[in-house]
Amino acid sequence: MFQNFEVSSNPATGAPRVAKLREELNRLQLDGFLVPRADEHQGEYVPLRAQRLGWLTGFTGTAGAALILRAKAYVFVDGRYVLQVRTQTDPAVFEIESLVDNPPATWLEKNGKGLVIGFDPWLHTLAETRALKAALEAQGGKLVPVQDNLVDLIWTDQPAAPLEPVTIQPLQYAGQEPRAKLNILSEAVEKSDAGATILTDPASIAWVFNIRGRDVSNTPLPLSFALIAANGEHILFIDKRKLPIETEAYLTQLTKIVAPNLMESTLAQLAGEGVSFMLDPALTAEKLRMIIAQANGTVIEGTDPARLPRAMKNKAELDGSRAAHERDGVAMVKFFSWLAEQPAGSVDEISAAQQLETSRRTVGEMFQKPLEDLSFDSISGAGPDGAIIHYRVNTDTNRKLNDGELYLIDSGAQYRDGTTDITRTVAIGEVSAFEKKTFTLVLKGVIALSRLRFPVGTRGQDIDAFARAALWQYGYDYAHGTGHGVGSYLAVHEGPQSISKRGAQELKTGMILSNEPGYYRPGEFGIRIENLIVIKEPEAIDGGDIAMHSFETLTFCPIDRRLIEVSLLNADELTWLNDYHAQTRDKLLPHCSEAEKSWLIAATEAL
Amino acid sequence: MFQNFEVSSNPATGAPRVAKLREELNRLQLDGFLVPRADEHQGEYVPLRAQRLGWLTGFTGTAGAALILRAKAYVFVDGRYVLQVRTQTDPAVFEIESLVDNPPATWLEKNGKGLVIGFDPWLHTLAETRALKAALEAQGGKLVPVQDNLVDLIWTDQPAAPLEPVTIQPLQYAGQEPRAKLNILSEAVEKSDAGATILTDPASIAWVFNIRGRDVSNTPLPLSFALIAANGEHILFIDKRKLPIETEAYLTQLTKIVAPNLMESTLAQLAGEGVSFMLDPALTAEKLRMIIAQANGTVIEGTDPARLPRAMKNKAELDGSRAAHERDGVAMVKFFSWLAEQPAGSVDEISAAQQLETSRRTVGEMFQKPLEDLSFDSISGAGPDGAIIHYRVNTDTNRKLNDGELYLIDSGAQYRDGTTDITRTVAIGEVSAFEKKTFTLVLKGVIALSRLRFPVGTRGQDIDAFARAALWQYGYDYAHGTGHGVGSYLAVHEGPQSISKRGAQELKTGMILSNEPGYYRPGEFGIRIENLIVIKEPEAIDGGDIAMHSFETLTFCPIDRRLIEVSLLNADELTWLNDYHAQTRDKLLPHCSEAEKSWLIAATEAL
Repeated sequence: MFQNFEVSSNPATGAPRVAKLREELNRLQLDGFLVPRADEHQGEYVPLRAQRLGWLTGFTGTAGAALILRAKAYVFVDGRYVLQVRTQTDPAVFEIESLVDNPPATWLEKNGKGLVIGFDPWLHTLAETRALKAALEAQGGKLVPVQDNLVDLIWTDQPAAPLEPVTIQPLQYAGQEPRAKLNILSEAVEKSDAGATILTDPASIAWVFNIRGRDVSNTPLPLSFALIAANGEHILFIDKRKLPIETEAYLTQLTKIVAPNLMESTLAQLAGEGVSFMLDPALTAEKLRMIIAQANGTVIEGTDPARLPRAMKNKAELDGSRAAHERDGVAMVKFFSWLAEQPAGSVDEISAAQQLETSRRTVGEMFQKPLEDLSFDSISGAGPDGAIIHYRVNTDTNRKLNDGELYLIDSGAQYRDGTTDITRTVAIGEVSAFEKKTFTLVLKGVIALSRLRFPVGTRGQDIDAFARAALWQYGYDYAHGTGHGVGSYLAVHEGPQSISKRGAQELKTGMILSNEPGYYRPGEFGIRIENLIVIKEPEAIDGGDIAMHSFETLTFCPIDRRLIEVSLLNADELTWLNDYHAQTRDKLLPHCSEAEKSWLIAATEAL
Repeated sequence: MFQNFEVSSNPATGAPRVAKLREELNRLQLDGFLVPRADEHQGEYVPLRAQRLGWLTGFTGTAGAALILRAKAYVFVDGRYVLQVRTQTDPAVFEIESLVDNPPATWLEKNGKGLVIGFDPWLHTLAETRALKAALEAQGGKLVPVQDNLVDLIWTDQPAAPLEPVTIQPLQYAGQEPRAKLNILSEAVEKSDAGATILTDPASIAWVFNIRGRDVSNTPLPLSFALIAANGEHILFIDKRKLPIETEAYLTQLTKIVAPNLMESTLAQLAGEGVSFMLDPALTAEKLRMIIAQANGTVIEGTDPARLPRAMKNKAELDGSRAAHERDGVAMVKFFSWLAEQPAGSVDEISAAQQLETSRRTVGEMFQKPLEDLSFDSISGAGPDGAIIHYRVNTDTNRKLNDGELYLIDSGAQYRDGTTDITRTVAIGEVSAFEKKTFTLVLKGVIALSRLRFPVGTRGQDIDAFARAALWQYGYDYAHGTGHGVGSYLAVHEGPQSISKRGAQELKTGMILSNEPGYYRPGEFGIRIENLIVIKEPEAIDGGDIAMHSFETLTFCPIDRRLIEVSLLNADELTWLNDYHAQTRDKLLPHCSEAEKSWLIAATEAL
């Protein structure tokens, strides 16, 4: 099992650890120290040794920060984690603040009068550092980089950095040789008038070199840094112990390989020799800027040049994704046909999530395309737990899938040929007309995006509301974006593309996105329907003036017909739904057992 | 007639005038001089004396700029004016550049190496000046403010500044006392930590003092500046010759009145005394910043505090707008019922526009609510002329309304109680199925916005695409925004609200906007349907969670039924259309003559 449902956090450790940290504050004559969730790569998943926020405070959410002052300590979390943080941290030690309305920079701007605050410049981006510095200086305070992270100094049994083996992502799945990718990046660096850029996002590095790893959970990343030079003299900063012989031989053809502990001196030397560096202020650790600045080097700000090409999947990546989604659909059918056979109340959120993971593993073996990981911990929520948007079940919260309730399962897998992410909400027994109505409104949102055509240049924020309009019409909405980017056997949350109010990136051919409107009734139930979709290249339309983008749906799995109030669908919507179910049946049926077949046929009957 | 259709521009005057201007460049040792379309108030309409761009180059469009260098001269225009500028300017003197892709700042950044360029700081905003300065300095050039505008120096018969009488906008229409408005602005100034702000947009000044004027065409503005102080010691800088005795008495209760020629010394004195000024960098003339800086004063950047409250119309303003739209609808019916009686080919674009103006005048007299002005020069385009989005007919381009063609008329009026703006496209005789199909797709866009509900916090850019989606589905689009803000007996184009890809302003209760999708087939025909709509306050929806905004349609005038392909409308759309026509009939029929009645009844029959 990739999933673990134990209660892992202990609020009691917070007090002694914070006390220890305050001794370090004293020693360094600091008024406080910042402990973000991020590691030096700013990813969503971080290795154990970098889970400093969790170790110090007890809070294990995937976003947050702590500010430890001499007398007080604060944990900053967003709306998703308001309940969780209270169970995981000691209220005698920590006060809770909003990461959204009052993040550390804003908090310091209001309360930081004269404070001298330490920070680890490896863990904060250029942009974050700038904001923190401005906030403190406006109050006569000061932001001071520390040489060693204060948490590391007191964390005596801190795990070592992971050394998981790095594998080569076959060209069959990657679809483009690393040399071609490196040339694209070198050209981008040259165009920005820099001599080199430093890739700090391990997903960018994995993409450009066609390598994958296992240093963190859920995302197949090897943690590393890479210097991409305009002149082609690239450097990969990675621990060679992570490189099996074939991977090392492969990488040596493409780049110089340098040990991470030599990165600082290497960069300083290059900067001193006059190489200018293009850094992405939203992604790059402040420490890298400091190294370059201290060597009197030049920093040019720009964007990680790998982000956009990485997001625009090529044919091999899309073929892989289609195949991965087909197998993942079979696993979903296996799970739902099993669930349909269980007596109401006999399954709980944990056993359901485990069963789905097992189904994926089984189908992976059947196709000889193993389940490499889950792309995130499954959100398995019955009844009111479905209303918690980022619900993570554990043995304390585990709930039965009771008769008459909705069950929401949001899950995804990592296969060598693709990353999946799917949400389905199903009825356990008979549910209310209100649940059917809101389910149908959510479905109308899914269909509106799925059917949409749009011209080149359209941004995610231009179309987000199509997924909401049906809900809006009845006085409902959902408090999250409609779609996030998805990687190709990489991160399940990938930028720069998104469909949301903040989705300023133009939607481009080959980008994979989720299409996941929802409706949540706190204390009662939650509904979300999520398919992955890919942006097709603009196609001429008969009689039209302009070739238009549209979406191809990648995810195939029945949408619970029992929850659809057909009278709320118009003819176009009904046609889409019936087509979708017909395709789902065609694709998945050949891979189903007899029992699964009869479930699938019933679940995909035309309405 | 408020409209004049004569060809007013003469390309032959460009050469001698530019030669004169170059003598001034020589005298001042400048390499060039910028001539924007704007006056010192940055409005869409400028008085004759400020039409420097038109006088110098011949180009009379409402947006543009010229850059006169020692040897070359450039006119910058946007896509609307590409054809017009070629007929109005001398190609031997002027090269044409794109105001959008290559505006002066961009042009100078590429080509301005070492150039010393003069500019009149009264005519460029802080933000523009900053961009121009940065562009030139990046090239080792220099931006130099001139004491006197070089065009004024050579324009020997430049008209005097207008001195049209300023009138009081009755409280019955304005709906709020100026004292209350002034208090709101004073509070905003205080909140921004400034001592005062300078309003430079005459629409803001007209709004806050409840005054109107006639200094420019189409918008009932008195040109003036106003200092709004946190402590209530306001100053209106206006020529007292514009103030009838009752207006002066009224204004004297509200503000100190100072002559415009004393503004510079007054501001300098206040700045010297330590008053800090909040200036809107997007609206305020650089000259005002210079005056304050030269007196060692402090400038704080902010937004014109009148813009948002001005945009959110109160009940009296909305009642006025409803009444104005009802009368304007009667005028439209009078026009269309007249047009229906004319033999095809007997009416031309000019006579049609004149007839509509006459209808408005007649109806204004009938209701004793006179037509004060047109809110812009009517766009009256038959056949292919309809495809020119900002077509302005003159005696050279005038075209007959021929049988078998579409006719597009976009027009609006200024009444004391409201500003109107309406577009209708009608068939002259029988037109093609293609024209009906595209007309119906445009109509679907109008209906999609008209029927939309949306939550508080939604921005214009979030909903722009609803007006396009039906066109997108068939491979069409239109190259303009969907909706602009409209003032209350003020500017027909009003910020900050808009419905477009750049509409970042949240949509708020009481804002009036246009809803005007279109479809344009260059060389063949153009279609636009435009209603004004107002944002209603959020209303609870039966069974819903969230109160939702929606739009009330203000414009009532039949939409040509002969052009509607009913099979393309869904049931909701057809219901909307029939309701709209039923309401139109109910509102307008009581004010129609017998002949108009029978036309209106036929034009509003249910489909």
